[in-house]
Amino acid sequence: MADDLLGGLAAIVGPGGVVTDGDRSRFLNDWRDKVHGDAVAVVLPRSTEEVAAVVRLAASQSVPVVPQGGNTSMCFGSVPHAGDRSIVLSLSRMNAIRELDREGSAVVAEAGTVLATLHEAAESVGRQFPLHLGAEGTAQVGGLISSNAGGTGALRYGPMRDLVFGLEVVLPNGTVLSDLSALRKDNRGYNLNHLFIGAEGTLGVVTAAALKLHPALHADADAFVSVASPAMALELLARMQDRFDTAVQAFELLSGSQIRIVEDMLPAVRSPLATLPDWAVVIHLGDPDHQAGLRERLEDFLSGELSSGRVLDGVVARSTAQAREFWKLRHSVTEANLKAGFGTTLDASVRVSAVPAFLEAASAALVEAFPDAIPVVVSHLGDGNVHFIAMFLYDRDGPERDPAKTADDVQVLINDIALAHGGSFSAEHGIGRKLVGELKRLSDPNRYDLMLQIKHLLDPAGIMNPGVLFPPGS
Amino acid sequence: MADDLLGGLAAIVGPGGVVTDGDRSRFLNDWRDKVHGDAVAVVLPRSTEEVAAVVRLAASQSVPVVPQGGNTSMCFGSVPHAGDRSIVLSLSRMNAIRELDREGSAVVAEAGTVLATLHEAAESVGRQFPLHLGAEGTAQVGGLISSNAGGTGALRYGPMRDLVFGLEVVLPNGTVLSDLSALRKDNRGYNLNHLFIGAEGTLGVVTAAALKLHPALHADADAFVSVASPAMALELLARMQDRFDTAVQAFELLSGSQIRIVEDMLPAVRSPLATLPDWAVVIHLGDPDHQAGLRERLEDFLSGELSSGRVLDGVVARSTAQAREFWKLRHSVTEANLKAGFGTTLDASVRVSAVPAFLEAASAALVEAFPDAIPVVVSHLGDGNVHFIAMFLYDRDGPERDPAKTADDVQVLINDIALAHGGSFSAEHGIGRKLVGELKRLSDPNRYDLMLQIKHLLDPAGIMNPGVLFPPGS
Repeated sequence: MADDLLGGLAAIVGPGGVVTDGDRSRFLNDWRDKVHGDAVAVVLPRSTEEVAAVVRLAASQSVPVVPQGGNTSMCFGSVPHAGDRSIVLSLSRMNAIRELDREGSAVVAEAGTVLATLHEAAESVGRQFPLHLGAEGTAQVGGLISSNAGGTGALRYGPMRDLVFGLEVVLPNGTVLSDLSALRKDNRGYNLNHLFIGAEGTLGVVTAAALKLHPALHADADAFVSVASPAMALELLARMQDRFDTAVQAFELLSGSQIRIVEDMLPAVRSPLATLPDWAVVIHLGDPDHQAGLRERLEDFLSGELSSGRVLDGVVARSTAQAREFWKLRHSVTEANLKAGFGTTLDASVRVSAVPAFLEAASAALVEAFPDAIPVVVSHLGDGNVHFIAMFLYDRDGPERDPAKTADDVQVLINDIALAHGGSFSAEHGIGRKLVGELKRLSDPNRYDLMLQIKHLLDPAGIMNPGVLFPPGS
Repeated sequence: MADDLLGGLAAIVGPGGVVTDGDRSRFLNDWRDKVHGDAVAVVLPRSTEEVAAVVRLAASQSVPVVPQGGNTSMCFGSVPHAGDRSIVLSLSRMNAIRELDREGSAVVAEAGTVLATLHEAAESVGRQFPLHLGAEGTAQVGGLISSNAGGTGALRYGPMRDLVFGLEVVLPNGTVLSDLSALRKDNRGYNLNHLFIGAEGTLGVVTAAALKLHPALHADADAFVSVASPAMALELLARMQDRFDTAVQAFELLSGSQIRIVEDMLPAVRSPLATLPDWAVVIHLGDPDHQAGLRERLEDFLSGELSSGRVLDGVVARSTAQAREFWKLRHSVTEANLKAGFGTTLDASVRVSAVPAFLEAASAALVEAFPDAIPVVVSHLGDGNVHFIAMFLYDRDGPERDPAKTADDVQVLINDIALAHGGSFSAEHGIGRKLVGELKRLSDPNRYDLMLQIKHLLDPAGIMNPGVLFPPGS
């Protein structure tokens, strides 16, 4: 039977398209090497027709299919389950940019296109594709769509969902739905694209997408300011958006505890402010018009905020080098925290205006349950996305703690608080295999049930990425 | 049985909530008085719980439910079918604004909230709700969502779909799904909101929505320019977006034939240009920053375009009054066309870059099939939305024509051409009861079949707005 399957797969994708020997670990394990899966075959189709044929063959033998892009999921969403007779379906060889359309502000890219390649293609016609994240040299279009990736451009441009005109998808029955016309307005019945965006490969295989391009930026300005509280940061954000609107490209809130850890652990990285603030915001403005005069307008605005006392202290970068220093502090957070202790980082989101109340409740609950923990905050405030971090510093006294169990306990504690504030425990990383239990525990039963019904409608045999989003056998 | 139903409904919504006598025509007929329906009852629930109870009662007796907002559909999507024993469920009394949140850029409004009321609410906190259309004094939030309304703000802010954080929906089985937290990032499984946006009431009843607010605008600039062709208008659009990005709020293409009709029929309305252009564009820029210097930057930009020959002639408005003159010409189109002859207006969309090819093909096909017709073009070019108008002037010689049959023939002819250019025959008006046949005729069968399967999954008894989107009994 396995031989039949392998022979059938080779007949579809060609002998070079089935990886049976050699090192398959990059297909079977997650990138941090935390989860190790098994597969009866790893296949690399070259076309939508080949994907459809693979899916039909898998369906005929009830073999699970695990769609895989760059395999950079934070939640183990693209690795097969150990013990399953799965096919890993890697889209890597489907990496053509089928169309690049400046006037239509559109690019049609196959699922295996690496994000950095997409950036270059957009730049080649004087435009930008504005989704940026750490793994952009590896992450692929299909995975970014299937996980509705966030990243640093989300405040201005939205997550991946907002950058998709339409999709080409192979359904679990092997038929192909195609919507690559890049229409800005289309009201012909139900919008099916959005079902597949963020579905993590459980409803079908995304094989290509028509994506939105935006104008490239030619002017910018950066500031590093301190404020008295998250509520004051929120007020500053509202006032900046009222004045600068879409020019506000990034607005990152840092707790003083986070800045202190960076400065303690990485002596070369300093805040530009004279004293350690309780709260700081790093701000980036950008505009396509080189005559936009952003720096002058930002200085004008912030001097008003300083006079009124809404901002306590602040520096506007006078050079690109100085702006880079501001952002170096922000981007050194992970490195510094790893040196300082062990931490559990949450991926919560609440409504933007609820961030202060959520931070207060989460911090209080954390120190009550874990008196030796330090609440550390790194927040994409403009998205309501809070990476709340429970830090256990190595140089601080406290009970012996098992990091894994502590991480689980912190997750449950803070996820419950996010929910109580109308929020989400998975803002931008998705569910994968990691948060299947939390999704079931924390979802409205009616919503969960309807999601399952949709899963059963599209994938009655349950062959698409089983064990992701829902427990195996759901 | 009908008495049982009426008694049951009165018990739910109170005696004042069932309209049985008096003039029910505004609930039963469309606003242009073209379609006349019947209903066993018109009910006006006051709460989500009452809506759920009405839906459960209707389901128990297999009575169709027609959700209705302001009843301003262009496609008869909110009127009951003549001869059906339907309940018209008017959301008009559910018109509370539950939350108005400046810092969260969010408003939670019930389905019966009139669009103009929403505008006022946003303005009261110094923000804007940017969807604008002719019927804004009547159209309601629930209908705008269910039809994914477009309007004049769509170029900059997208259609209604892009302005929704989340929905509260009563499903056909009477359960309530609620997602009113206004989260900007949330990756907890399938996004169900988008299924209901544009579903025209066939999958459930939208009872409330969390909607996005945007910064208010405090600077603007307007221009009226002529270009040699739609292709040159497209190039101008791309160059303007590269420089002004989201400040480009409107970019409307008019054919010379349209300008001539306006000037012939309405002598008080003139183009600001010295000669009648072949093609003209009316442009509006807007920015929240009063210091944005838009007029100077627009003059600087257009003088470069004039020097290069990409723009043939143009005027930048020196005053608000002059800007109003430019837009008066644009907004006089319907009135002038009604005086000039009979016309059939299409609601097509194609990819923005495909507009020139579509216009050329549509114009050629029209004059070949109807030599007495004049192709007239009014296009939201930035959306790829083309209101292509086949005009039959009263003062022009031609065969005797039946307007209704001619309209049908023109529709089929031009819809086919839109499809051949990868486009849609329903860009912003939806399907309703009017275009059910065209949806079936022109859809990919796999897509149509999946839409029907989703309809059957959510509404197995077929009680929700039957005859809309799909033929009765589908």
